[in-house]
Amino acid sequence: MASSTPTNKVCILGSGNWGSTAARIIGDNVQLLPDFDNEVRIWVYEEMVDGKKLTDIINTQHENVKYLPGHKLPANVVAVADAVEAVKGATHIVVVIPHQFIQNLLDTVHGHTMPNARAISLIKGIGISNQGMTTMTQIIHRTLAMPVASLSGANIANEIAEEKYCETTIGCSDPDEAIVWRSLFNTPYFRVNCVSDVIGVEFCGALKNVVAVGAGFIDGMGLGNNTKAAVIRIGFLEMRRLAMHISGARIQDSTFMESCGIADVITTCYGGRNRRLAEEFVRTGKPMSQLEKELLNGQKLQGYLTAGEVHSYIDGCSITDHFPLFTNIYRICYQNKPPHSIFDGLNVDFSRDTLGQAQ
Amino acid sequence: MASSTPTNKVCILGSGNWGSTAARIIGDNVQLLPDFDNEVRIWVYEEMVDGKKLTDIINTQHENVKYLPGHKLPANVVAVADAVEAVKGATHIVVVIPHQFIQNLLDTVHGHTMPNARAISLIKGIGISNQGMTTMTQIIHRTLAMPVASLSGANIANEIAEEKYCETTIGCSDPDEAIVWRSLFNTPYFRVNCVSDVIGVEFCGALKNVVAVGAGFIDGMGLGNNTKAAVIRIGFLEMRRLAMHISGARIQDSTFMESCGIADVITTCYGGRNRRLAEEFVRTGKPMSQLEKELLNGQKLQGYLTAGEVHSYIDGCSITDHFPLFTNIYRICYQNKPPHSIFDGLNVDFSRDTLGQAQ
Repeated sequence: MASSTPTNKVCILGSGNWGSTAARIIGDNVQLLPDFDNEVRIWVYEEMVDGKKLTDIINTQHENVKYLPGHKLPANVVAVADAVEAVKGATHIVVVIPHQFIQNLLDTVHGHTMPNARAISLIKGIGISNQGMTTMTQIIHRTLAMPVASLSGANIANEIAEEKYCETTIGCSDPDEAIVWRSLFNTPYFRVNCVSDVIGVEFCGALKNVVAVGAGFIDGMGLGNNTKAAVIRIGFLEMRRLAMHISGARIQDSTFMESCGIADVITTCYGGRNRRLAEEFVRTGKPMSQLEKELLNGQKLQGYLTAGEVHSYIDGCSITDHFPLFTNIYRICYQNKPPHSIFDGLNVDFSRDTLGQAQ
Repeated sequence: MASSTPTNKVCILGSGNWGSTAARIIGDNVQLLPDFDNEVRIWVYEEMVDGKKLTDIINTQHENVKYLPGHKLPANVVAVADAVEAVKGATHIVVVIPHQFIQNLLDTVHGHTMPNARAISLIKGIGISNQGMTTMTQIIHRTLAMPVASLSGANIANEIAEEKYCETTIGCSDPDEAIVWRSLFNTPYFRVNCVSDVIGVEFCGALKNVVAVGAGFIDGMGLGNNTKAAVIRIGFLEMRRLAMHISGARIQDSTFMESCGIADVITTCYGGRNRRLAEEFVRTGKPMSQLEKELLNGQKLQGYLTAGEVHSYIDGCSITDHFPLFTNIYRICYQNKPPHSIFDGLNVDFSRDTLGQAQ
């Protein structure tokens, strides 16, 4: 086995906090996988750090000093500034960049990927409009015409880099490919469960941020554990309800019990920047745009954006009554409603679901 | 309506933190319910506080200065030291005492309750042995021969007394009686959902304490949000799996999505004394019996006891392999296994449940 010629090769598109953490794991794992080339290329958006190119720093110091300082990368992880160069010969492409840059990057590598290549998306964020939902795997598949899996879970990147035990979920429709993706990511401290529901995994990863905004409002008002647990519970049920409405039977209910579902909602409602900014929003009374400038260097807050998109969908379908928490969060974010209005009309009975499906 | 003679009357058996909190809510609510007598009797285990009887303090100062200081009780809540006197004429009996005292109290009031009386149990804790499960409502029903409902939820008592928004779950098999119980407990800040699954509500209220012990171990080891979310997720799934095995179809899966289920697990794994003592157990290395003496005045920790009972059941059924988290928590509590062994063999696939049912 060990002497067979490797037929597979990994490329990681993206080298932020999460991409660098993934590179640490995959760089170690490929060394144990005879089917895989030892070299793992990681595409780095080139920038200068203390007068040196970030790619050079990574390739000599084996550390992403800007986005994952304090954690060494395996020496077989090779930083490449050219995305086309990065995907050359790659059979397994890990996509892990902020979602606003995805289309440009895909257009750049389009036509340069291997015919047998497949991808996995680690990106948080989906697009929701009046028309329905577009996920990152759908965008990648549409542009690159290859099979695409998804990975999401209760995965705050720094805690994984510190090798603290956690779980994650891979959504992959092909069971054989799922096993290969699992072999690239699974470690004793990063436990991978595979499900066949690709978009369900992505849906959970995006929608949990809306719930986290609600949890942040609770913290901002100085309320306690009971209240936050109520908001998490109701938010989780509204996520499931929205999934059913927006996707029909395509999203599986069991996906919500995986790490990408309930566990990620919990993690994000206790840690994470969506919760933190929402807390500041209530405490300081500053507009969200100002907090984004002050605390996120002007980057848009994911949960805030998704709350707006969700509202556009459920309002367009005239079903806001079935989503009181999402609706209240939207109104607090966008319509200057007071934070305490988050509790208005929350007594919806989710056990008798009479809401139909869109599709 | 308002001029009709009230035919119903509430008695609360127990005046600790939670009983006093319930008395605040019920004392207010009965004033709006024409079917109910204005007086709410609360049985108080008589003790002296600063040279005065606790019953006298409650009946003159309208505050349980020992167990719920800082929160006034409505004046229509009347403290009674004699349990037989307390249940006299009561149609609705709220049982809210530590579970180790329940049988004695029931034997005391047996034969003195109204023929049309019914009860609701707010007690946390069930008995599990090789033979199966005995719940508090079953014990009450067996002794007093009356219909018994249950109430449990993400309900840290002090936060409710401060009127911070939360939810709770009432399990009541009779829909008409459920409406009456709901009218006694529901307030704008304490939202009651009713389900028909009486023992499922109790099961969740007891088993969540075992998960909280696991969460405390995680905190004691200084691990992060990802890890705790993983333990909560797996613990929640093992709770559901145990319910299915121990009760057959009697416990409804939907009960786990109520406040008594997932929300209470979350609250208890972030707040609560089960979590706290388990954290101290790991941090200090002191035996649990010593911590119980130091921090609980010698009272036994619920989650610790329940972990032992659960293990006796699953070991007797030879199904410990299906409950790796519960088994690991048991071994850390009782067999001096190191805290980090909590992660051993956690990669059970709960999506393909091949475990049969006991009954």
